Amino acid sequence: MTTINPSKQTALRTHTCGELNAAHAGRTVTLTGWTDVKRNHGGVLFINLRDLYGVTQIVANPGSPVFKTAEEAKSEYVLRVTGKVTLRPGANANKNMPTGEIEIEADEITVLNASQPLPFELGEHAGVSEETRLKYRFLDLRRPRMAKNMVLRSRLSQVVRNYLYGLDFNEIETPLLTRSTPEGARDFVVPSRNNPGEFYALPQSPQQFKQVLMMSGMDRYFQLARNFRDEELRSDRQPEHTQIDLEMSFVDEQDIARVAEGMMQAIFAHIGEEVSGPFPEMEFSDVMLKYGIDKPDLRYGLEIKDCSEIFKTSGFKVFSETLAGGGVVRAIKGPRAAVFSRGDMDKLTDLVKKAGAKGLVWLRYKDGKWESPTLKFLAEPELAALKTLLEAEEGDAVFLAADKAAVAAPALGALRKELIARLKPAQLKKWAFLWVRHFPLLEKDAEGGAWTFTHNPFTAPLPEEEHKLDTDPGNVRSCQYDLVLNGVELGSGSVRNHTRALQEKIFGLMGYDKTQVQQRFGMIVNAMDFGAPPHGGIGIGYDRLIGLICGTDSIRDVIAFPKTTSGACLMSDAPAILDEKQLKELHLKITE
Amino acid sequence: MTTINPSKQTALRTHTCGELNAAHAGRTVTLTGWTDVKRNHGGVLFINLRDLYGVTQIVANPGSPVFKTAEEAKSEYVLRVTGKVTLRPGANANKNMPTGEIEIEADEITVLNASQPLPFELGEHAGVSEETRLKYRFLDLRRPRMAKNMVLRSRLSQVVRNYLYGLDFNEIETPLLTRSTPEGARDFVVPSRNNPGEFYALPQSPQQFKQVLMMSGMDRYFQLARNFRDEELRSDRQPEHTQIDLEMSFVDEQDIARVAEGMMQAIFAHIGEEVSGPFPEMEFSDVMLKYGIDKPDLRYGLEIKDCSEIFKTSGFKVFSETLAGGGVVRAIKGPRAAVFSRGDMDKLTDLVKKAGAKGLVWLRYKDGKWESPTLKFLAEPELAALKTLLEAEEGDAVFLAADKAAVAAPALGALRKELIARLKPAQLKKWAFLWVRHFPLLEKDAEGGAWTFTHNPFTAPLPEEEHKLDTDPGNVRSCQYDLVLNGVELGSGSVRNHTRALQEKIFGLMGYDKTQVQQRFGMIVNAMDFGAPPHGGIGIGYDRLIGLICGTDSIRDVIAFPKTTSGACLMSDAPAILDEKQLKELHLKITE
Repeated sequence: MTTINPSKQTALRTHTCGELNAAHAGRTVTLTGWTDVKRNHGGVLFINLRDLYGVTQIVANPGSPVFKTAEEAKSEYVLRVTGKVTLRPGANANKNMPTGEIEIEADEITVLNASQPLPFELGEHAGVSEETRLKYRFLDLRRPRMAKNMVLRSRLSQVVRNYLYGLDFNEIETPLLTRSTPEGARDFVVPSRNNPGEFYALPQSPQQFKQVLMMSGMDRYFQLARNFRDEELRSDRQPEHTQIDLEMSFVDEQDIARVAEGMMQAIFAHIGEEVSGPFPEMEFSDVMLKYGIDKPDLRYGLEIKDCSEIFKTSGFKVFSETLAGGGVVRAIKGPRAAVFSRGDMDKLTDLVKKAGAKGLVWLRYKDGKWESPTLKFLAEPELAALKTLLEAEEGDAVFLAADKAAVAAPALGALRKELIARLKPAQLKKWAFLWVRHFPLLEKDAEGGAWTFTHNPFTAPLPEEEHKLDTDPGNVRSCQYDLVLNGVELGSGSVRNHTRALQEKIFGLMGYDKTQVQQRFGMIVNAMDFGAPPHGGIGIGYDRLIGLICGTDSIRDVIAFPKTTSGACLMSDAPAILDEKQLKELHLKITE
Repeated sequence: MTTINPSKQTALRTHTCGELNAAHAGRTVTLTGWTDVKRNHGGVLFINLRDLYGVTQIVANPGSPVFKTAEEAKSEYVLRVTGKVTLRPGANANKNMPTGEIEIEADEITVLNASQPLPFELGEHAGVSEETRLKYRFLDLRRPRMAKNMVLRSRLSQVVRNYLYGLDFNEIETPLLTRSTPEGARDFVVPSRNNPGEFYALPQSPQQFKQVLMMSGMDRYFQLARNFRDEELRSDRQPEHTQIDLEMSFVDEQDIARVAEGMMQAIFAHIGEEVSGPFPEMEFSDVMLKYGIDKPDLRYGLEIKDCSEIFKTSGFKVFSETLAGGGVVRAIKGPRAAVFSRGDMDKLTDLVKKAGAKGLVWLRYKDGKWESPTLKFLAEPELAALKTLLEAEEGDAVFLAADKAAVAAPALGALRKELIARLKPAQLKKWAFLWVRHFPLLEKDAEGGAWTFTHNPFTAPLPEEEHKLDTDPGNVRSCQYDLVLNGVELGSGSVRNHTRALQEKIFGLMGYDKTQVQQRFGMIVNAMDFGAPPHGGIGIGYDRLIGLICGTDSIRDVIAFPKTTSGACLMSDAPAILDEKQLKELHLKITE
């Protein structure tokens, strides 16, 4: 066997800048790295030499032949330093630095490369615009926080893979040059030079191919897959993103949930966090009632309560008439929110109005009694019942909305989010996972005409509700589930249709006849003709997951070379124009 | 912790079709899988139920309630079978089958899905066109050989990753929506809707980004990366392919070679093959002399010898005049090739002529003497010296070409390949790795005008030959190396330029002025301005490697969903036309 040096020794260095300690004292070593902080202390030069693994202090004494080079080395100069490992005198040892017990007395310093003056300081807290950071990404990635994010992202991908290989999943690469299908967002497309006028599409997900892999008998598939969506970008969206994508045959929803939970436990164990399973699961309809959003942040309580019963016969017409019209009255408590001023309450009212609600009723419970502009309309027993239902106590506030359920839910959901932001209640747990299950299979599309899928056109209806496809398709629940972590939708999956008849029936409800189904989804329905097994799976957004773990608001901080919100790479200047010859070869012309 | 079942038990099955043996006798199990072979033996039905993991025999007795379902199950029907594990009577046990000791007496059979009649039999040896196989890839992948290729490809990718993680490499995803650069082959491009008239390019490799990662201080990078090339396709080319891509900082050529060798050893150890290292290495110029090709198959000897010395003063003008004109005379021995007929010799002559040579001189050594149409032109001492040099013996043949070295080398290289194919000499080893080193840095481009790079514009010259860039650029050797296995170029890499001055000088020789360098390669030269470390790396073609290991001639057999040579996916019908609305959004028009 070739001897592989398990250390990171190379032709140019004997050690890295992160590994030397008192045990190495007296040894002559060669380090390579970047000139970080440099100080002149009574004529002696101290250089913090930095690489990915750490920082080591280099000493250049005034008399030494290396002094001149050390003096010339500016920020980010790449140096190669040979010298003796020396113990720092007790008082000078730096306990905050893994290599703080030692320093290197330099005998030889070579400048391997120089650096122009930097466009910004690399220190963590140097104020610098994201635009500059993206343009000089090679400098931004040298910042320890960014480097740590990249390394953690890499290591956790291996945790994921080891976990799935342990369960006999196989990673199978699906094509990136695929066919455009009307599956949701807009596709990026690639003109085919060999087939003028035709285009490949970059996949929005490996959805169809992974289902075909199940139909190919592959049993358990996964892939850390690159997905593409030509959408308007936001801080949590990039034109290309990575997904932990998996699919299994002969399974039900619970099988898939157990695999995903085990994966999350393996990932969090790697960063020293224990998360217990199985994760809580809730019906979609319950989640919407209790949190007003399909991805609630369950690190906090603050549950929305239905108080329709209390106000059915209320003298307060706004409530009783809404209820008589089939609406709901729902409430949420703001713990210790009685301190909110009239101005605060106005802002919260604006917030729920922006979310579509007609208005917000609020009450403060102070000094043992309620106060509110609406107080005079509410009867004493109603207030008492409300207090009991919400367990409101001295210093709390209560907020009510009366509206159609479909309006009250998101309005109070938005209010809940704002209350959490303002009140900063204690976290019930650090990592709050939740399965949201049984989304409706179909909903009316934006124009309100045809049925469309809520998540994925291949999702199966709950078997016990399949019969309602003929009579009441809007009320058929599906085998669709989302995995939510701390209010972020981490992933989405389902048990799929595996017979052509059922898949065609669902496409039929969406307005596709058999010819259109064949034309648009031919690959998958053809494969269903030849012994497709029951199967299901999930896709988990890797960038978002790593973003949460790294504690950053922007997934751009966990992607090596991200794009701006206009889809540009400021470092490479992509996208760019093509020359005429290229366009001609592709049989394309640019139009206005 | 959630209990993850380490077996492949799911809601629908207790076991797979590959795991039951005598130890399970008496247990009631539920299996799922596909109806493979079915036989009726004296009224009793035997079904081989197949999944990815194996085949288990199911028995349906005539009187049993399951008999009717078993009778109806046709090829590739998906079944769920519950029954008791029963020992087969000694004589009926099948030792060639891992589950051959047992069978399942079915108590319950459910058809989970039916199948249409198959377009072709799934048996290994069923004759079927590749077109049909690609159209019904979901059936083709159910064939055990194909399934095995996919699983092995997956497992070996994990071997690669574990190996590189063990050496503290980090896997970092580089963008797939990048900028087009004139780096070699034609780019696939992606129109940017947000930036009308501008295009992203799909990367031909992560070359520039991985170098920028080194400049970002990431120290050791790898990626199983998807690469794209819009080229004419062949059996070993696909529009997208996978590369084990790696890069390291502060290294020389040997550091990288050791890492690549260790990776190959880990891969081959996984399939039970030992390959010893370090791998042999040869200068590019030596390889061309001895094998006439830069990726020789060293499983075989058959070395080309230079015999210019022998024929310097030869009476045979073809030889002596070629030598006088600065050409060479080179020879190769065909062991036991004296049996070749005149017709065979004519075919070999055509072959070397097609490769550019003026002709081929051949001699057969039979019954202790030479025979050849050219014999009369050659002197006895010349023949004796030739015999000694080539160690020719009774029954061998000798082939000579006289030409410019640049012509003789590939001509005899092609002949060597043909001799190996015809003579099938004994293999010296099963897996013959070779490093080919020190390719020329530059060569004249096709039009013979400007200098162009031979492999990669970022490759560094050998430090000791850098000074010749000014005086004799065509004779500067580079730090470029190829890894060859059994005559296949597996990978290619180099130590790179890390200073802007040297990189610009090389680009200058290629005819780019500073403005053009900035415009086309701005990202990488800008990063060189800010402390770029010395670095180098390699990219290894993963499809080719797996193809060699799986013993297939076509990389399409180791890719789940490959394209045809015209770039089409016959299963999904990609590429396809776009509708007018999409084209309009992209500001594109199709031209003739």
